[in-house]
Amino acid sequence: MSNRRRNKRQEDEELIEGRNPVLEAINSERPINKVLLAKDTHGDQLRYIMAMAKDKQIPVLLREKEVLNRLSVTRMHQGVIAYAAPLAYHSLEDLFRRADRTKEAPLFFLLDGVEDPHNLGSIIRSVEVFGGHGVIVPERRSVGLTPTVVRASAGAANHLPVARVKNTVRAMEELKEKGCWLVGGDMQGETIWEEGFDLTAPLCLVLGGEGKGLSRLVKENCDLLVGIPMRGRVRSLNVSVAAGVFLAEIIRRRASLGKQRL
Amino acid sequence: MSNRRRNKRQEDEELIEGRNPVLEAINSERPINKVLLAKDTHGDQLRYIMAMAKDKQIPVLLREKEVLNRLSVTRMHQGVIAYAAPLAYHSLEDLFRRADRTKEAPLFFLLDGVEDPHNLGSIIRSVEVFGGHGVIVPERRSVGLTPTVVRASAGAANHLPVARVKNTVRAMEELKEKGCWLVGGDMQGETIWEEGFDLTAPLCLVLGGEGKGLSRLVKENCDLLVGIPMRGRVRSLNVSVAAGVFLAEIIRRRASLGKQRL
Repeated sequence: MSNRRRNKRQEDEELIEGRNPVLEAINSERPINKVLLAKDTHGDQLRYIMAMAKDKQIPVLLREKEVLNRLSVTRMHQGVIAYAAPLAYHSLEDLFRRADRTKEAPLFFLLDGVEDPHNLGSIIRSVEVFGGHGVIVPERRSVGLTPTVVRASAGAANHLPVARVKNTVRAMEELKEKGCWLVGGDMQGETIWEEGFDLTAPLCLVLGGEGKGLSRLVKENCDLLVGIPMRGRVRSLNVSVAAGVFLAEIIRRRASLGKQRL
Repeated sequence: MSNRRRNKRQEDEELIEGRNPVLEAINSERPINKVLLAKDTHGDQLRYIMAMAKDKQIPVLLREKEVLNRLSVTRMHQGVIAYAAPLAYHSLEDLFRRADRTKEAPLFFLLDGVEDPHNLGSIIRSVEVFGGHGVIVPERRSVGLTPTVVRASAGAANHLPVARVKNTVRAMEELKEKGCWLVGGDMQGETIWEEGFDLTAPLCLVLGGEGKGLSRLVKENCDLLVGIPMRGRVRSLNVSVAAGVFLAEIIRRRASLGKQRL
């Protein structure tokens, strides 16, 4: 490999810092190129990281603490930094395969225009925590899998497939063809608590970006619009909170009908 | 008034920037000292702001756009900046009075150690949106009503009373004396979806800070611990998402029993 290619690869690498995030990453299927440990750091967790890395044949290098301080972006490395291959995007097929494996009706989130990395990270975390099967984001007017998103996801982005699509409406058509109901989150929709909706079917929740909601075209392509009842002077929730409320209600309903284990 | 006092007051003032946030603030009970409008800006919303301000006898001053650019902290002033008196904290009595006025069972959130201003802002927003009656934060190890919190609340902090208490456990005792059930959010608790819990009673949800959860002492002082079922590799939700899920379930349950209007 030429030097140029080697440099290229290092640029693509992502630094993962801190004991929990590094452990999360080692325990995921994401390829880790190496782990740096600060000399003179101790603790069960660091010993566990060393053992896990050895087990997975990941090189562990001891370095002076100052070296880690210099490399750290977050200033919270806690004596350990891992170099991971960049997170790969998945295809819509991958997301369906994930649902197939769990023998559950697919549950996806399509986010049309979420631009705040903390919101995207928080939504990926919620979908993973509640046992959903994937998140879909468009290439444009949307944040992707940046290191900030991965951190805000508390590592969930290492475990949950995220698909990136060129065209939101085309992706919606593909999801429909594969049997998914498209449920748009919209203030004008009927309340999600309406027991008439069948939330046990294969579903893709569609949410708009911060402060903008769903575009007209996306709304027209939804099978159903549902909302969250609001009574305050402020008329909208933070998008990651809204996603969590929709998710929890779907899982609650599926579990109460015996269609989902908890 | 001496010059010194006048300067002191200006330091305490809070800048509110942008069309929606300024409108929110003018429409709330919060005292606004003045509004700056950029010359040569137009639009129905700005005309509406001028009319509202005149109605409330708030001075409106026209200034060059460069003056607003220089004053702006967020760089998103959209041609309008308001100077508001700092938000005042409320007492626990104020929170109970708010519930009394709505003739609903009190619904409060006590946040023991939430340090991220975006999380506190997002929780204040959710509590206001769902029609809860107030938020309680301790003086120490917790963020207060900073401008970032007010912005992250989408203006909800102007409408919802926030109480600040010296001692969390003492506040819990006071809430109990006033008839509130203290419900702690905790992974070891039974699921919030358990229909056996009476969520229509006067309630104060108690949540711990980011990544720490409830302290032992606070947990011991709760009447009940409830959790949100989680199935993923990641074992916790973002605290503002968790708050939203608890809130939505309480409101859903109260509404289904006819104890709360939607």
